[in-house]
Amino acid sequence: MSADARFRQTAQELGYSFDGEIKIGGNYVPIVRHQNELYISGQIPRIGDTVVVTGRAGADTSLAQAQLAAKICAMRALALVQRSLGSLDEVKRLLRMTLYVQCAEDFTQQSEVADGASEILFFVLGDAGAHTRSSIGVYQLPKNATVELDLIAAV
Amino acid sequence: MSADARFRQTAQELGYSFDGEIKIGGNYVPIVRHQNELYISGQIPRIGDTVVVTGRAGADTSLAQAQLAAKICAMRALALVQRSLGSLDEVKRLLRMTLYVQCAEDFTQQSEVADGASEILFFVLGDAGAHTRSSIGVYQLPKNATVELDLIAAV
Amino acid sequence: MSADARFRQTAQELGYSFDGEIKIGGNYVPIVRHQNELYISGQIPRIGDTVVVTGRAGADTSLAQAQLAAKICAMRALALVQRSLGSLDEVKRLLRMTLYVQCAEDFTQQSEVADGASEILFFVLGDAGAHTRSSIGVYQLPKNATVELDLIAAV
Repeated sequence: MSADARFRQTAQELGYSFDGEIKIGGNYVPIVRHQNELYISGQIPRIGDTVVVTGRAGADTSLAQAQLAAKICAMRALALVQRSLGSLDEVKRLLRMTLYVQCAEDFTQQSEVADGASEILFFVLGDAGAHTRSSIGVYQLPKNATVELDLIAAV
Repeated sequence: MSADARFRQTAQELGYSFDGEIKIGGNYVPIVRHQNELYISGQIPRIGDTVVVTGRAGADTSLAQAQLAAKICAMRALALVQRSLGSLDEVKRLLRMTLYVQCAEDFTQQSEVADGASEILFFVLGDAGAHTRSSIGVYQLPKNATVELDLIAAV
Repeated sequence: MSADARFRQTAQELGYSFDGEIKIGGNYVPIVRHQNELYISGQIPRIGDTVVVTGRAGADTSLAQAQLAAKICAMRALALVQRSLGSLDEVKRLLRMTLYVQCAEDFTQQSEVADGASEILFFVLGDAGAHTRSSIGVYQLPKNATVELDLIAAV
């Protein structure tokens, strides 16, 4: 099965479509390719115009919801890569994921939230999806999103 | 008009000079070039010895002040690039801006703060200034700065 | 003296061993090499199974303890690089360190915390250790760690 087929399967399992425009809010671009590296802008769990998971993990928002947010962010990033390259099979290696979690004062499961995104990256990209990562608990995020995720990939 | 001329124009409009030393506080270097990539250290809105915008966006500090802070950080980063390369016209492409905003618990306009910096990067660098970005709301920053900004650029 | 000898000396001075497995918690990899760049995952101050410095800098945790945490994170990152390359003398240049400090609301010495890590990077790697950096005060970190540190290096 191709990486693109695994991407479609994951979207179906999540119950969200990533076929439409991947909207961003602000004066920047979603993706930049420089030679054989791709930089992908910070993604929040937005589907169409709606941020579907908001609030503070460990207070307003459960671990499971935060993990779902991380998954949606990962799928948005993959959708951008797919459109840029034509196929996710063109990804040679993920280099870095940084995941920011808007969290409660005593919420220390940022790694568990990040695992939601990492599982998708491994499943969709196979060996090319093995990545380094940093998981950080932050005070707020744009539009009250629970999670923001960015990526650097090699092609 | 060259990128350097647009840089000078922007400095005049802001009413700040970026001609002096771009001071940093700590045991590191402001810029590293490796092959055709430049990494620029996190910049706070310091003019000479003074951090000119401090405090928590959405509480002590207005959105407009936070945007000004982001602009000053962007200009400092560009000043460092200009000195490293001789001319801002040598920038081939910005790859990544990460912008951290010290903010109030419910302040969710990190993207709007970042737009202050992004506008300057687009104006000064033209097409080369189109960048990916992540905008994050954090709990504190060095010297109580409202904003910190770092860059990766291709030359 | 080689970089590897300086690494051993620093480990002895700190009183910690970095000879065992550098454990990570989660579904990712500690290090990725792509061509001549190394990405190192976010390190917390873990020795074996124990996170040895936890809590909020400026409240639960002193500046000195936070600096120790930063040093341990830097040593863990160097240990990973050493195992990946065979010798720390293979590092051509550090490109970026990002250091996150879990801190109190009014703690503004993130740069001073980061200096703990930067000093080790300069001492062990010599000229190759001169790096750009960003120092950020965050709300929480995995396992209540006081500090998290990641690196990008050129080889």
